[in-house]
This record gives sequence, structure tokens and C-alpha cells, in this order.
Amino acid sequence: MKTSRLEAFSDGVLAIIITIMVLELSAPKETNLSSLLAKTPIFVSYVFSFIYLGIYWNNHHHLFQITQKVNGKILWANLHLLFWLSLIPFTTAWIGENYEAELPIIAYGVVLLVCAIAYFILQSVIIKSHDNEFPLRKVVGSDRKGKISITLYSLGIGVSFLNTWLAIGCYAIVAIMWLIPDRRIEKSV
Amino acid sequence: MKTSRLEAFSDGVLAIIITIMVLELSAPKETNLSSLLAKTPIFVSYVFSFIYLGIYWNNHHHLFQITQKVNGKILWANLHLLFWLSLIPFTTAWIGENYEAELPIIAYGVVLLVCAIAYFILQSVIIKSHDNEFPLRKVVGSDRKGKISITLYSLGIGVSFLNTWLAIGCYAIVAIMWLIPDRRIEKSV
Amino acid sequence: MKTSRLEAFSDGVLAIIITIMVLELSAPKETNLSSLLAKTPIFVSYVFSFIYLGIYWNNHHHLFQITQKVNGKILWANLHLLFWLSLIPFTTAWIGENYEAELPIIAYGVVLLVCAIAYFILQSVIIKSHDNEFPLRKVVGSDRKGKISITLYSLGIGVSFLNTWLAIGCYAIVAIMWLIPDRRIEKSV
Amino acid sequence: MKTSRLEAFSDGVLAIIITIMVLELSAPKETNLSSLLAKTPIFVSYVFSFIYLGIYWNNHHHLFQITQKVNGKILWANLHLLFWLSLIPFTTAWIGENYEAELPIIAYGVVLLVCAIAYFILQSVIIKSHDNEFPLRKVVGSDRKGKISITLYSLGIGVSFLNTWLAIGCYAIVAIMWLIPDRRIEKSV
Repeated sequence: MKTSRLEAFSDGVLAIIITIMVLELSAPKETNLSSLLAKTPIFVSYVFSFIYLGIYWNNHHHLFQITQKVNGKILWANLHLLFWLSLIPFTTAWIGENYEAELPIIAYGVVLLVCAIAYFILQSVIIKSHDNEFPLRKVVGSDRKGKISITLYSLGIGVSFLNTWLAIGCYAIVAIMWLIPDRRIEKSV
Repeated sequence: MKTSRLEAFSDGVLAIIITIMVLELSAPKETNLSSLLAKTPIFVSYVFSFIYLGIYWNNHHHLFQITQKVNGKILWANLHLLFWLSLIPFTTAWIGENYEAELPIIAYGVVLLVCAIAYFILQSVIIKSHDNEFPLRKVVGSDRKGKISITLYSLGIGVSFLNTWLAIGCYAIVAIMWLIPDRRIEKSV
Repeated sequence: MKTSRLEAFSDGVLAIIITIMVLELSAPKETNLSSLLAKTPIFVSYVFSFIYLGIYWNNHHHLFQITQKVNGKILWANLHLLFWLSLIPFTTAWIGENYEAELPIIAYGVVLLVCAIAYFILQSVIIKSHDNEFPLRKVVGSDRKGKISITLYSLGIGVSFLNTWLAIGCYAIVAIMWLIPDRRIEKSV
Repeated sequence: MKTSRLEAFSDGVLAIIITIMVLELSAPKETNLSSLLAKTPIFVSYVFSFIYLGIYWNNHHHLFQITQKVNGKILWANLHLLFWLSLIPFTTAWIGENYEAELPIIAYGVVLLVCAIAYFILQSVIIKSHDNEFPLRKVVGSDRKGKISITLYSLGIGVSFLNTWLAIGCYAIVAIMWLIPDRRIEKSV
């Protein structure tokens, strides 16, 4: 089976997830500056999540650029990833309204962590479904970036009991790390 | 007519249906664990429906993988299926907030049952629109899985008057049965 | 310019319009049969609008099946049609909660009428952008169906001041008339 | 990398942004004419934003018509544009309910201004990623239209402290200017 429809469906789901979050950004009731500034935490959490979802879309795009065929297992591994990504608007909305509380920060990190694991699973399933000459195998290699992400998310969840800003810092490092696009795949294509 | 646009439109509708459900998962007002855990039934009903819609997308993908051309009848049979699938967020939201009541469980089962029938109709219309050599004809054969699903949904609706957990069990068996991807089509492709 | 991206964007917008309506179908607060049956008018208005939008998608699909190239004018005529179609969820929600009042029935008819006119404009712009040998020219011909639709919608709007059910009848005839797919285009393809 | 998936994802996001705005157009509670007319400012702001987003989709479509390949930088410049466009429903909702207040008019203009800058950045990144023979280079040239837009938006934001209708006038001129499709690209294709 070709990858085109899996890509189209994933694009659709990701486009909706990324845009649904803006529904949380309801217009202020009043028209003064303070009522607009009161939306800042919701706005910042939206920016954050937009970047994470942008990274996932980017990496997903790169991933299926070199994947030539899909099977039932890949379809389900992809749906599994989309499921966890679909929870990001939920944790974004929670963190946006309670950015100083512990639990929303933890929940946000847990969803990001599980998304990273789901992406790792998808990558592995794709590699397993192809033969030894499959270019992704070399490109991914030891997948250091993926492992560092999972470590940093776990660390962030752990430290959020001490200090929520420290946790947010951990999550942010992962985002910055991934904002540099995965040139390895681009080169091999 | 080619199948590409029917697939694209169906992907769009399915992507929206699958993602709209997460809007029900509104962020808790408070930030303690009990307010998060109070969302469990809504979350579980979302997981359930995500899996059902994932199965439909998967099967739809397999179905149109071997369908080469479409006509007006197939377009309408497909829209008919999408209509019933679009009711899943409604019954999911209802069951999520009232998982112990009879009627939401029945409504959930009825929508699943009608979706299964609509899928069966779509499959039949596609087969009728092609000649005898059409590979789907052999692949589907007696379509045991489809018939078992319809029977189990009906059974679930029936027993929900006795015990709602028994009904949920019936629905769950169908999901598990379909999670195993339809290798028959993959092989014939 | 090729038609593929115009089709993809239109599919996206139509898929969202058709699915957004189901958000109006909020789950009943209670779990008894009467609270479910209280949703009947909203459900019926959803079925109605789903069929209309299905017809537009179907006809749009047929239309661009034989259109080979697009220009700026066609892009805007298409966006103009999508704009009016995007108002259908608004009038559907209004009619669903007030199906016995005059004004929602009139508003519903006016939006359907303007959609029909916008579709007619799109068709004309496409024909004008192609040469005399363009098959759509023959296929559409005098476009009796389009003219009857516009007449019936106008009639429905007019009689809704006398009797709202008569108006609904007029609108329904148009839907039934179009449910028979446009074989003329299918044959010419 | 090919442009197809970037186009599909952008189409998805734009289709959702353009359609999400209609959710603000909630059905009136009553069924008299005055309750319908009370929706006029929300409707007008929706029409306005629909046109702006239509222009962006149109220009985006033209832009990627002559762009043959994408890289990581283009993907991010495109996501950056989509982010700012996704804020249009927010400012549209705010302006729709407070069209006489200063701040919503300013906010609306600021988002439009940043969108114009983001589009300019995307265009520049695409040109930089291609060689000297790339047709877009000649087509865009000094990009007078883009520069006039940015000037007019800035002017609108400035004058909104004096008179909000003057600001709306400035924004409207940009829309009218762009409604004339970019024939330069069409010709070069």
C-alpha cells in the first residue's frame, strides 16, 4: 500500500489538532488592554503547543518522505501517535488557565512524553517493516535526539514537584532541540 | 471517475469526527488529582470511539485500495456511511457523562450497528459496480467478520436492558476482532 | 493551473462544514427517552443539511472531474460558493431549535437559494474560461435542474409566510431532485 | 522534497481557520428580525476575515504553483505564517462583538500586519532556497503590493487611535487591492 492516504489523513488530524487549540482563545469580554493581557498565559501555552505540533508534523513529513509502503501495523502505530497528539489541546487548555499549578504541568509533560514514545514506536515499526537496505535505518541510527527528548520530558515531570518553571524549562529545551530540522533525512532523500 | 477525491473527502470528514470528540474533554476547573480523575469516563469513552473510528478509517483505506473507479451510487453509499459515523461524537459524549445509564449505552450501540450496516451497504454497492473478476469479491467472500459484528452489536443492544457492562463487553469484542487488520485485502493488493 | 489543490481545499472546507453541524447535537443532560427525543428537530435539520451539503459535494466533484484547468476567477467563484455553504450550519442550528417559526425557515431558504446562485456562477465562470469544445458546455446545456432549484427555493421562501411546512416541502423537492446523481457528466467522462 | 504535503497541510489548516469563524455565528435565541439583525456586526467581520483568508489561500496557491521543492526552512516559514493566520478567528470574534472600540480594531490590524510580514518572510525563504533562474524571483520583483499592504496595515493601526472607521478603511483597501488575483504568477506558469 502507498503512503499517500496515511499522509493525507495524518495531515487532516494534525491540522485540526493544531487549529482546535485556538478555540480556547476566546475573545475577551471587555475591550481594555488588561482584559487582553489576561489572555497571555493561554496565548503562550498555545504558541508552545503549536511549536510542538509543528515539530511533529515536520518530523512526520520527513519520516514518510523516505517510507515507500505501509501495512496494517504502520497504520495502527500512526493512529496511536495521532491519539496522543490529540490530547495536547486538552493539556494546553488546562496549563493555559493554571500555569502555576503542579498537576497541569505534569499532565502536559506526560502527554508530551507519551507522544515521543508513540513516535519512537512508529519509527521502529516502519524500520521493522522494511529490509536492511532501508535508508531510514542508517538515518535514524541510535536516534539520540529521540532518546534525549524522552529523558528530558521524564526529568521535567520529575522536577515539576519541586518547581514548575524548571519543568517548563526542560520541555522547552526539547522544543528548541527539534526546531533544527532533521537534515539527516533531507540529505538522504 | 477516480477514487482519489472520495478518499480525500472521507479522510477529511473522518479526521474531523475523530478530533471533534476531544473537544468534549474540557480542561478541569480545578488542578487537583480528583478533578482530573473525574474526567476518566469521558476519556475512556473517547479512547473507545477513537479505536472504532480508527478501525473504520483502516477498513475504508483497505477497501478503496482495491476499488479502482467510483460512480454516483458509491459516492452516496459513502456519504451515508460518513453520516452515521458523524453521530459517534454525540453518543460518545452522552455515554461519557452517563456510563451507568441504560439509554446512552443503547444509543451508542445503535449508532455502531447502523455504521456497520452502512459499511456493509457501501461494500455491496462497490462490488455490484464492478465485474465478476473484481478482486474485492473474493476477498470479502461471505464477509463473516461483518456479519459477526452486526450480530454482536445487536446482542449488546439487547443485553443492555439487563446489564450495561455486558453490553459494553459485546461492543468491545467487535473492536478487538477488527483491530487485527484485514490481511486478506493487503495480500490481494 | 491544475485543479487538484482547489479540489483539496474545497474538500477540506466542505468536510468541516458538514461535520461542524454535529457539534449542535449536544448530548442530552438526562438519560431518559424524552430528553433524547427532544433532540429530534435538531437531528432532522442536521439530516436535511447533511443531504444538501452531500449534493453540493457530489456536484462539485462531478464539475471538477471535467474541468481541466483553473484561473484566478474560478478560484474566487469557488470561494464565493464555499462562503455561502459555510452559513448552512448557522441556519441549520436556528431552524433546529425553532422549526415552527417563520424567520428561521426563510433564512434557511435564503441561504440555500444564494448557494444555488453561487454554484450557477461558478459553473458559468468555468464555462467562460474554456473554449467552445469544452464538454461541460454540452453537458450543462440549459441547466434545467439549476433553474428549477432556484425557482423552488424562491417559491419556498415566498410561501413560508403562509405555511412553514409548505416551504419545507419546496426545499425537500429540490433535495430529492438532486439526489439522483448527474449522470450526464458521468457519461461524458 | 516535494511541495504536495506542505500544500495539503496548509489547505487543511486554512480550511479549518476559515470555517471555525462561523462557530462564532451562533443562532439567535429568538426568531424575530431584530435578533437576527443583531448578528450583523459578527456577520460583517466574518465576511471580511473570510476574504482575507481567501486572499491568503489564493496567493499561497499561486506561490507553491511555481515552487518546485521545499526544505526544512520553508516548512517552518510556512508554519509561522499559519500560526499568525490562526489568530484571525480570535480577533474576528473580538471585533465582531466590539466593532466600535479601539483595541479590537488595533488587534485585528496587528494580526493582519504580522500575517503580511510572515507571508513576506515565506516568500523570501523560498526565493533564497532556489537559484537565480527561479521564475518567482522575476515575478515578485520589488513586491510592491506586499510593501503597500504592510504600509497600509501600519497606517490603519496608527489612525485607529483617532477614528476606528478610518482604520477599517485602510484594512479594506488592502483587501480590495489583493482581490485582483496575481496574474504575474499565472502568466509565468
